[in-house]
Amino acid sequence: MDQLTIIPPRSGTAFILRKGQQLKVVDVEGEQVSDFICYNLDDRAEYLSSGRTIDYAETIFLTKGHPFYSNRSNIMFELVEDTVGRHDFLLTPCSADTFRIIYGHTHPHRGCFGNLCEALKEYGISPDAIPICFNIFMHVTVNGETGRVDVLPPKSKAGDYVILEAKTDLLIGMTACSAEMSNNYSFKPIGYQILN
Amino acid sequence: MDQLTIIPPRSGTAFILRKGQQLKVVDVEGEQVSDFICYNLDDRAEYLSSGRTIDYAETIFLTKGHPFYSNRSNIMFELVEDTVGRHDFLLTPCSADTFRIIYGHTHPHRGCFGNLCEALKEYGISPDAIPICFNIFMHVTVNGETGRVDVLPPKSKAGDYVILEAKTDLLIGMTACSAEMSNNYSFKPIGYQILN
Repeated sequence: MDQLTIIPPRSGTAFILRKGQQLKVVDVEGEQVSDFICYNLDDRAEYLSSGRTIDYAETIFLTKGHPFYSNRSNIMFELVEDTVGRHDFLLTPCSADTFRIIYGHTHPHRGCFGNLCEALKEYGISPDAIPICFNIFMHVTVNGETGRVDVLPPKSKAGDYVILEAKTDLLIGMTACSAEMSNNYSFKPIGYQILN
Repeated sequence: MDQLTIIPPRSGTAFILRKGQQLKVVDVEGEQVSDFICYNLDDRAEYLSSGRTIDYAETIFLTKGHPFYSNRSNIMFELVEDTVGRHDFLLTPCSADTFRIIYGHTHPHRGCFGNLCEALKEYGISPDAIPICFNIFMHVTVNGETGRVDVLPPKSKAGDYVILEAKTDLLIGMTACSAEMSNNYSFKPIGYQILN
């Protein structure tokens, strides 16, 4: 674990993952979500698309073995290991607006959205270019009859992880999520490591 | 019905809807989907966001009474009438890639995506700026246990409609959907009318 880079609670980072490299994302303490987004490093208008990925996978629950597609229907990465098996790919990152609208906060935190904006800014990514994220370890249930969406505590325990493999050069933005409900009401770090 | 503008089968269009105006979208013959997307007319980097809308509504099934949010968490329109009550907001528009990847077509149709690209081009919208659409009348089921997504024939019958009311000036792109499965394997027109 000492080779892990740590994303402190309620913060975010951005970095490059080259084609063929694997990224391990670790829930260090358990029950902590990481919002994940990526772009084609060489043409950053191409981004990870939940709509394309869900359409081609025919499931809203993406896990080991699933390819993740861009808005241009190219495979950006594949999930090659997953010790949890439950993540979200429906919701946008939490933001000041989320905290205002859902939680009623009057002085809201900037959330994962604000953290991703800051981390990705130096790479030329504008706030409008941050779409629905792959929310690693986020536990969202959908009632198939009513459509109701609920956010439950993550199923991940300390040390649980996913590994993804880049299929093209990627610019990645990642957070340790800032939303109370998503993280069972305590904010913890996220660890990551580029494996090769 | 003679005041309806008709979108011919497997095609698309774009037009402006001003704040306060209502738009009626009619399934003229029944079992026909219309992919719908909109942008803030005055700043087209602001677009309809499925992720924000689902998050704030706490349901994947949007219907009468629901506000629809932009990526900047502003309300773009509200659904004020809905005779069907079942639409999709998870999937990206069908495209040549959809037909290639899901249907195995070797000479694929350009799909709703291609039709939206063409219709929105003159308004300065690039293909990369066309995200997940609100797929009116599209009947998508989600198995809450497994996550499995299935596309069923629309529940809409001839004459069924929705009415939405613009909360800001909108640039709208709309289609008569081109995907076999989504429209019970026959391609029909879609009608629309600006009510006031």
